[in-house]
Amino acid sequence: MSLSVSFFDRASQAFHRSPKFSKLLVIFAVGAGGIVAYADAKSGHVVESSEVSGKKKLVVLGTGWAGMSFLKNLDTSLYDVQVVSPRNYFAFTPLLPSVTCGTVESRSIIEPIRNIVKKKGGVKFWEAECFNIDPVNKKVHCRSNSGMNMGGNGEFAVDYDYLVLAIGARPNTFNTPGVVEHCHFLKEVEDAEKIRRSVMNCFEKASLPNLSEEEKRKNLHFIIVGGGPTGVEFAAALHDFVSEDLSKLYPTCKDLVKISVIEAGEHILSMFDKRITKFAEEKFQRDGIEVKTNFKVVKVSDEAITMTNAATGEINVPYGMAVWSTGIGTRPLMMDFMKQVGQGNRRVLATDEWLRVHNCDGVYALGDCATVSQRKVMEDVSEIFRIVDKDHSGKLTSKEIKDVLDDICERYPQVELYMKSKQMKNSVDLLRDLESNSLKESKELDLEDFKKALAYVDSQVKMLPATAQVAAQQGYYLAQCFNKMNISEEHPEGPLRIRGTGRHRFQPFRYKHLGQFAPLGGGQTAAQLPGDWISIGHGAQGLWYSVYASKQVSWRTRVMVIGDWTRRFIFGRDSSCL
Amino acid sequence: MSLSVSFFDRASQAFHRSPKFSKLLVIFAVGAGGIVAYADAKSGHVVESSEVSGKKKLVVLGTGWAGMSFLKNLDTSLYDVQVVSPRNYFAFTPLLPSVTCGTVESRSIIEPIRNIVKKKGGVKFWEAECFNIDPVNKKVHCRSNSGMNMGGNGEFAVDYDYLVLAIGARPNTFNTPGVVEHCHFLKEVEDAEKIRRSVMNCFEKASLPNLSEEEKRKNLHFIIVGGGPTGVEFAAALHDFVSEDLSKLYPTCKDLVKISVIEAGEHILSMFDKRITKFAEEKFQRDGIEVKTNFKVVKVSDEAITMTNAATGEINVPYGMAVWSTGIGTRPLMMDFMKQVGQGNRRVLATDEWLRVHNCDGVYALGDCATVSQRKVMEDVSEIFRIVDKDHSGKLTSKEIKDVLDDICERYPQVELYMKSKQMKNSVDLLRDLESNSLKESKELDLEDFKKALAYVDSQVKMLPATAQVAAQQGYYLAQCFNKMNISEEHPEGPLRIRGTGRHRFQPFRYKHLGQFAPLGGGQTAAQLPGDWISIGHGAQGLWYSVYASKQVSWRTRVMVIGDWTRRFIFGRDSSCL
Repeated sequence: MSLSVSFFDRASQAFHRSPKFSKLLVIFAVGAGGIVAYADAKSGHVVESSEVSGKKKLVVLGTGWAGMSFLKNLDTSLYDVQVVSPRNYFAFTPLLPSVTCGTVESRSIIEPIRNIVKKKGGVKFWEAECFNIDPVNKKVHCRSNSGMNMGGNGEFAVDYDYLVLAIGARPNTFNTPGVVEHCHFLKEVEDAEKIRRSVMNCFEKASLPNLSEEEKRKNLHFIIVGGGPTGVEFAAALHDFVSEDLSKLYPTCKDLVKISVIEAGEHILSMFDKRITKFAEEKFQRDGIEVKTNFKVVKVSDEAITMTNAATGEINVPYGMAVWSTGIGTRPLMMDFMKQVGQGNRRVLATDEWLRVHNCDGVYALGDCATVSQRKVMEDVSEIFRIVDKDHSGKLTSKEIKDVLDDICERYPQVELYMKSKQMKNSVDLLRDLESNSLKESKELDLEDFKKALAYVDSQVKMLPATAQVAAQQGYYLAQCFNKMNISEEHPEGPLRIRGTGRHRFQPFRYKHLGQFAPLGGGQTAAQLPGDWISIGHGAQGLWYSVYASKQVSWRTRVMVIGDWTRRFIFGRDSSCL
Repeated sequence: MSLSVSFFDRASQAFHRSPKFSKLLVIFAVGAGGIVAYADAKSGHVVESSEVSGKKKLVVLGTGWAGMSFLKNLDTSLYDVQVVSPRNYFAFTPLLPSVTCGTVESRSIIEPIRNIVKKKGGVKFWEAECFNIDPVNKKVHCRSNSGMNMGGNGEFAVDYDYLVLAIGARPNTFNTPGVVEHCHFLKEVEDAEKIRRSVMNCFEKASLPNLSEEEKRKNLHFIIVGGGPTGVEFAAALHDFVSEDLSKLYPTCKDLVKISVIEAGEHILSMFDKRITKFAEEKFQRDGIEVKTNFKVVKVSDEAITMTNAATGEINVPYGMAVWSTGIGTRPLMMDFMKQVGQGNRRVLATDEWLRVHNCDGVYALGDCATVSQRKVMEDVSEIFRIVDKDHSGKLTSKEIKDVLDDICERYPQVELYMKSKQMKNSVDLLRDLESNSLKESKELDLEDFKKALAYVDSQVKMLPATAQVAAQQGYYLAQCFNKMNISEEHPEGPLRIRGTGRHRFQPFRYKHLGQFAPLGGGQTAAQLPGDWISIGHGAQGLWYSVYASKQVSWRTRVMVIGDWTRRFIFGRDSSCL
């Protein structure tokens, strides 16, 4: 019996291997599940990669958004690819808040990384955690995280020629005492499952006999620290869970439940448009979700959260369960690595616009574990002037600017943003603006004028948000670069080198913002789409459903997520303490 | 906004509360999900039970098969019902082996107990573990199992008039050293999830670099101790998982996997018909599953399992994961209780045929935590003779036997079994048989002859198996008894009292065996159905699917289980280490 069983085999096995029946079944499946079954059937056999000499060793750390997107788009036949991650699956993290309340099951949003890469062949995966990067000897040291009964201690080292760091971040507690011990985070699938169990435990505890109302209220007080998109979405999801499902099953509890969102800033969802912030705050008020802005949490104990506010001073708030969602911090592995590569004084690892780690040959970093440090115009202003001033006249003309404007904009996107912000269309407009900035009457700029004129441009540099969208785009970008590594050596496609000669090998990474959602509960979502288009309500919720369904990494998870939504709609959410 | 949201509300909410749309949606749902949605929509509101004086306090411990079946069939308006269980859900345990390999998801086989009883109202549920039963003061002492930050230690006591014990059993290790520390069990949903994670960890460990083939083989050796239905089904499920799914994702591992079933007896599946045992052993041999019969495990360490056999002596077998499935033992709570009620010398709590605990007023026990101790004919033989011999002639006639035969058979089912086994149809046949047993020529039996004649009857007494089927039937039976408690006091419906006057209040519990399945993998199942009807193969697998789907406790789990089967068929099983 062959050990490799595809969908067709399964179908025919079930019907005693009659080909007629299996055809019938496939038609049925195409009718019911569509292209799904067909795609699976095509997957074929896996070819075991052999260490073909001559291929460069490409090691990828991490299987999150950045790592998965990179692997999915990489031509794995060009490299000897090894992936190291403590998780052998990719998780669709934007649905984690839905997992906390059972709207979607945890297994529905994860896909084994081996499934994702199996069609390509030649990718080796090690389920282990990297605990040390050695950029000098080009090695990563890893440790298996599933028990040690292997004769050794489960440690091994992997050599690399290229290293792609995509290990993500950890929750940032700002060193607040008690957070790690008493608060839940919401970064991993396990976190979401723990929160789900914890919510149900709070309800079961509050339902026990002989409890005072005060004790019940304490157990049913859910505090979310951090009014960002994750915290707000969780608060909304929890409110829906309580009002739609738990209130029926725990009738004695429903009036004692309190959900609070604690935010240190002025408003929740501060990264969104003001209209969305306002709508969210008003909706939460109507729903009875308390929003405490300008409150800073200073301590967490097992009984209460201590917070301060300019008006009230320090207060103690008893709680049943707390979720900490205040942003991300750097992982210890990354801290060590940063010290080694001379970035010890930074908070996050910096890469250049090609996602390369500064001064570190062959190492790339993407996703939440790094930030792109955009080169400032002012750092290169003399060289830029030299390049633009083709005739070495010491003065720039509109024609000269026009010739290199595309390259400049590609290398320094802030110039393009600056032009856009001032409604400039071409080099003539730009020259005119630079002239007016330089406060001179003359029609030609010299170096000093040029410096003065560009002084404001760098303020347009924007930090990329720590989102799945950025990580996925970076993974795609870097995979494309690796795929054309050889071709582009001969035919570089990037902008002109400002310090140096010729062109950069690749175009630098450019983030394209496709919009962001903030589900607010009750079937309503706020969406901020490109071009400042705002949509709030049931329509945006529909859009949310379709975007999240279409962005799923496989047909399997897509079908499962949609199935979960349907199930929730018909039967409600499961309230078992599992 | 009302906090009680039914399916209709949800539907109309999503469509801006237009009743026209919600009708449309319901029609859609009936088309797609059928009666499902309608049944849910009927569920209505929950009425909070008030402690109406006069109602007797009925306390149920446990929410497994016995407890759930009892609660589901109980008229909860007649009693003040309180349920105590550490699990707030019911689990469909026969599908646990499927959960170990992800064929079915764990959430698909569980249903919150509050969901099951919410339509009835008046049932209070406490998520806690009972740690002491006090039959003297009619109290159970319980402890909340979800943290203790309640001001107290989470302990409380519950008074009862009637106590229904349905707490199930624990795995039996026969005090073999190392089992608890190193083996998995397969009794709870969490066990199945742990096994699933452990299987995947074994594959990931075996895939790590720098491992010798010996180490790989060790990690991929899966040992199942116990050749009963659970162990055999798990072995078969694991083999399917490996050959259908994992072999594609772990091509380097597939030839190193070994699955062994260790059985102390002569054969696996010894409780089944010999034809099934033979088929299973042959199929396992074809599949490469090693069956080691007549092997007794004496020790388990973290590296190897030590077992003995008359021929080989003691051998050490290295393993990656071991599942211990050798039957059930009594829980510590039950041991303590048995000492209190004078059953300290027994292995399992005994009840009479009405599921009442001997010498313990108002306490009932059912499911795996107790056994029905069938009254022996020989214990009552003098009284039986007295009752049958209506005219006190000291001799029995066929007519006299006929008059009370139904009552006798009801009270002592072994008599009926005895008659069946000898193809007797009525009292004339029975008298003739008794006469021939008594080795006398006379046509009339006196007491001594009667005793001699019945000497073999008690050997027909059968112990009930520890299955879900028995527990569910007992729960249903006991609920019916409680429902007609008052009516049957005036109109007793049971058999004649042998020691005493009048009739028993209820008919004794009688188990009706509906058959048993043994899934053997590869789409093949063995089924032993009533009347010694044996079916083996794909047809029995179809029957298995339909029986297990129809026996689901709710429409929600039914839809989810069928959905999981479909998903497995199309996409295979999930191999994430979650």
